Formats: sequence, C-alpha cells, structure tokens
Amino acid sequence: MTQSKTWWHEPASAIQEATIQAAQDHQNKLTKPQGSLGRLENIAIQLCGIQNTLKPSTEKIAITIFVGDHGIVEEGVSAFPQAVTIEMQKNFIAGGAAISVLSDSLGASLEVVNMGSLATESSVPGVNHQAIAPGTANFLKQPAMTESQLDAALNAGKETIDHANNEQIELWLGGEMGIGNTTAATAIISELLHIAPSQIVGPGTGLNSEGVIHKAQVIEKALAFHQGKMDSPYHVLQHVGGYEIAALAGAYIRAAQLKIATIVDGFICGSAALAAIKMNPSIEPYLFFSHRSAEPGHQLLLDHLEVEPIVDLTLRLGEGSGAAIVTPLIQMATRLHNKMATFDDAGVSEKID
Amino acid sequence: MTQSKTWWHEPASAIQEATIQAAQDHQNKLTKPQGSLGRLENIAIQLCGIQNTLKPSTEKIAITIFVGDHGIVEEGVSAFPQAVTIEMQKNFIAGGAAISVLSDSLGASLEVVNMGSLATESSVPGVNHQAIAPGTANFLKQPAMTESQLDAALNAGKETIDHANNEQIELWLGGEMGIGNTTAATAIISELLHIAPSQIVGPGTGLNSEGVIHKAQVIEKALAFHQGKMDSPYHVLQHVGGYEIAALAGAYIRAAQLKIATIVDGFICGSAALAAIKMNPSIEPYLFFSHRSAEPGHQLLLDHLEVEPIVDLTLRLGEGSGAAIVTPLIQMATRLHNKMATFDDAGVSEKID
Repeated sequence: MTQSKTWWHEPASAIQEATIQAAQDHQNKLTKPQGSLGRLENIAIQLCGIQNTLKPSTEKIAITIFVGDHGIVEEGVSAFPQAVTIEMQKNFIAGGAAISVLSDSLGASLEVVNMGSLATESSVPGVNHQAIAPGTANFLKQPAMTESQLDAALNAGKETIDHANNEQIELWLGGEMGIGNTTAATAIISELLHIAPSQIVGPGTGLNSEGVIHKAQVIEKALAFHQGKMDSPYHVLQHVGGYEIAALAGAYIRAAQLKIATIVDGFICGSAALAAIKMNPSIEPYLFFSHRSAEPGHQLLLDHLEVEPIVDLTLRLGEGSGAAIVTPLIQMATRLHNKMATFDDAGVSEKID
Repeated sequence: MTQSKTWWHEPASAIQEATIQAAQDHQNKLTKPQGSLGRLENIAIQLCGIQNTLKPSTEKIAITIFVGDHGIVEEGVSAFPQAVTIEMQKNFIAGGAAISVLSDSLGASLEVVNMGSLATESSVPGVNHQAIAPGTANFLKQPAMTESQLDAALNAGKETIDHANNEQIELWLGGEMGIGNTTAATAIISELLHIAPSQIVGPGTGLNSEGVIHKAQVIEKALAFHQGKMDSPYHVLQHVGGYEIAALAGAYIRAAQLKIATIVDGFICGSAALAAIKMNPSIEPYLFFSHRSAEPGHQLLLDHLEVEPIVDLTLRLGEGSGAAIVTPLIQMATRLHNKMATFDDAGVSEKID
C-alpha cells in the first residue's frame, strides 16, 4: 500500500511563539522570584503553547493501556511467561495493577485495549478487545506484522485519541503491557538511531546478564535479517514493532494533531514516541517525557531527542505508570500558572534593581 | 541556660528492622517485576518504618510556614526589600502564593506562623502571630538571638507538631519565608559542615554575581566574629540562625519523636534539617528530602547527609513549595504499597526461574 496520503503524515500545528512569550510574561509577574519554580514554569509554558491559551487545563485525564504479545518470545527473551498478558489484563480491570491504583489516585479514566493477545471478551471481560492477531509474528523469521496489520494498529491509536477528543480530555497518558515488548522496543530504537542492540538492551522485567546478552544477539540477528526492508520508520514498526507500540505511535501523532498534550511513559512508550516523531516530526512539542527509565537504553533515546525527563525514580514497570506518577507535577505546574497572584494583584514589592 | 535536659535531645525511636523487612517482602509480592517501582518502593518501605506499620497512610497533610526576618539584611545581602515579608504573609493567607495554590491542590491544611517579623494581628490577620522579635539581630555585629529567644523558636516548632499530632496528621511539611534567610542558612551550613561560605553561597531570590560575592564576604566575616562561641549546633543556630529556621529544626525533631514523617523542602529548610540532625541524629530516618534546590550549596548539604532528593526540578522558591510538589509522589508510593494486588491475590504468574 502507499503511505503518502495517510492521516499520520498530516502535520500538527506549530506552537505559536506569541503564546509562549505571553505565557513567559505571565510567569514573570507571579509572586515569586523569576524562574524560581524552575522546570514547573517550563511545563506550564509548554502547556500554554500546546493548548494555545494562557489558561491551560490538565484536570481531565484519560489513560489507555495497549496490550500486545510478541512472537519473538519463542526465542527466550523474557523473564515472564506469556500467560501473564491475560492475567495482567484481568488485574488492570480488577484494580490491582500499579496503573489501576495510580489511575484511581488521579481520578482518571482507564481503558485497556487488547491489540494482540489471546484474551477474549469471555476470558477477560471489561477490556476493549481489538486484537489484530493473537500476537505479532516472530520477527527473527518474518516481519512482525503485515502493512495492513500495522495500519490497523496505528488506526486503533488514532481512534482512541479521537474518542478522547470527543470527551474533551486535556491530558492523555499511554501505557503498554506485553511479554517481550522490551525486545521489540530495543529493535526499533536500535534501527532508528543506528545504535547496536548490545548498547541498548536491558533486563526488561528481570533477565539475568546471560539473558540480556542472548536478547541482544536475537535482536542483532533480526535486524540483519530485515536489512534493506526497513527503509522508513513505518517499515521499522512493521518489521520489528508490536501492535501495542504501533497503537501508541498512532495515538501520539493523533493527539498532537488535535492539540492534546500527552505524557510518554518509559522505555517502550519511548520507542513508540521515537517512531512517531520520525514518522511526523511536527508532533514533538506535544509530548512530555515523564521519567528516565532504569532500562539502560532509555537514556540514549532521551539524548537523541535532547529531552530531560521530568523525574528520575529508577522506574521500570511500564503500564504507563511513570506517566501517571508525573501527572500531579504537571497538574501542579498548571494550577500554579493559573492561580498564583501577580505582584500587582497581591501588592507585593518586586525585586530591587 | 543549661541544655542538658531539654526535650530536643530525647531520641526518636529506632526504625524496626523487622518492619522494614516485612514491608520489603510485601513489595516483592505485588504484581510487578521486583524493584520495578524503583524509588517509590523505598519511599513506601521507609514510611512503613516511620509509622511502624505495613499499611502506612499519608492522606492527612499539614503545612506550616514559619516566617522570620533577618537583621543581616542591613548588610545588603538580599534582592528583595523587607516589606515583602509582610506582603507575602498576606499573600499566603489570601491564597495567591505558590504554597497556597499547592496546599489547596493537596487538600492540606496551611498555617502561617509569624516567628519574627513586623506583621501584627491587625496588619496581617489570619496569621498565627508568635513573633519573638521583629527580626533577628544583625549577626555581623551580635548573636542573631539570645538563648531564650532560640528556645522560644525551637518550642514554637515543637508546639506546631504537638498540635499536628493531636490532629492525627500523617505527613508534615515545613516551609519558610523571610528576607535574608539564604544568608542565615548559608552561615549555618558553612559552620556545621566546615565549608567556606564562598563554596555554598548562591543568588537566593536573585542577587547578581557581585551581590553573591558580597554575601559570601559578609558571612565569612560573621563566622569569624562568632568564632569559638559556636561550640554546638544549638549555638550555631543562636549566633547565625533565624527564628523560622530554629522553629523548623524544632519541628523536625519533635515530628520524629512522635513518629510523624516530614518532608524537607530545599536550601533553607535543609539548613534547619541539618541543624536538627546535628542536635539529635536519631531523627534522620523520619525526614524525606524533597528536591535538589537550584541554590548551589544545597548539593553539598545533600552529599554530607548522603541523601538523594526525590526530584530535581531546579526549584528555588522556598515556602515549602518543593516539599508540597513531591507530596503526590509520596502519596502514590503509599497507595501503590497498600492497594496493589499480590501475585497470589490476582492469580498472576511469577517470573520464570
């Protein structure tokens, strides 16, 4: 199929420099030494740019977890069995997973979308079942998915955001779950950044050092196998990606097109954000990078994008948990911007010049 | 007066190793790869130790801002005029200050205690007026306060915590406001850590580089002037401290004695925490250090205490704002610990060994 006329190439609006300047001017009038709220000021100003307003709002939050299994686990690249993908979907819905607790804490909506696992409506009720296949193909032997499967995954991400937009969501958080997905994420980052898998690969959910070496070798072989066919970020996703990762990429792109701020979680969401930015560079200012993952390759990705994540708490859980954890900081930045008094309002004396 | 039988020397209870171990065991049973919640796991475990329970709670929060002016401002060490101390107390009460917005966001109680400024009940209603003096003495020329004034300030901190304890407060956040207080904080840290003021001093609310050099020189002279008399942390506070800093130190000590977790804000609160720990080392495990301040000397203090603050957001506002900003992270850590399902509860398969 031809990609030239697809929705994901439509550029997001450029952030208005005048809005950024006006937001900065407003910050400078608030009753605090200029710049003393540090990065929270930058976050508030970025939100003004994203929402193109001087009164941004981040109260209405939606979280979507895309779930996908990976054929590559046949090669022994994960510490957990694939049964966990079904079990964790139940746990998300039952409220026992980390992201469930965090979502509840934030008063956010939480949707679980099964993009590619063996779960069904009868085995796991409460999940939005859109499985394109029970999992990707083993990308050591064939492309992880076909082009039409990839399109379906990207479109699922788009539809999630179109729905969020209808619901006037002000901040969207993507999460993922899938056994084997650090392997796919490592392959994507390695290919897009031209860095050897051995420099990016990490323990995922808990491989030992032997397991990590094996995982790097599997990825290296896979990238060699697909060499020459991965001529675009789209084809990288197709050959070594995952359904949940592609859905996230589609969601990040669509959110930016609709001026919805998104918070990128850690390593796997980072690989999806990287692919999305490579597919459509205009979206980058709409993304907040939440945390520096304990997964070692994450820093290389952040370095490439020249972003400093908001926190560094040695998280490596996924599920969107890191994105959820920084959400109160983003909300506080927004509330400070909107609600603090100015020097004039409060009759507070300014700095002596 | 004799200090030997004072309340602030009473040790805080040692954290029970058995509680820490049981809390760690509980974390390891939750439906996530072990350790994958990173520092949030450590925070939850520390809270278990502090509250000596496997179900800690951090829902009920109190914030107290201690306000104090500093005679040392006669020497031209601050970028803001002293009138701001009265104006900001009004701003705290009116809800326009950063800490007011943050307190509201947290659903916390907010009390402003005037420990030493020109504000009065009639000029600034709503504040708890306990001014020991209109401000400290200029410590370039005499001790900042007398011993009985210092005792009064330490006792004010104790009373605040005794009241919080009666209210069943689960997390206490101290803040401060006072023109000139980075100068006092720098002097305290310099003296307690035996580091030259020039290595610690920073711009405070916004001095230029000339101003910073002058500030360091003033502190250096003051420390030389009091040499030989600062034979204990108590006497350091008396000679170069501030009423708000001493109240904070008293509060940190009393909170630990009552097993109440406290969150230490940035540079000035850090100087109070350092003095408190030097006065009573048993209290240290009861303190959370919230953020790495943009004020350069803060890192030296953190290094000395061997603590890694929770976030690094280049904040330098004070008022307890950094402590408030990390509070949701501490609450999320607590809720995750209490509410996540275990592998057994949720029927989720564990790691393949």
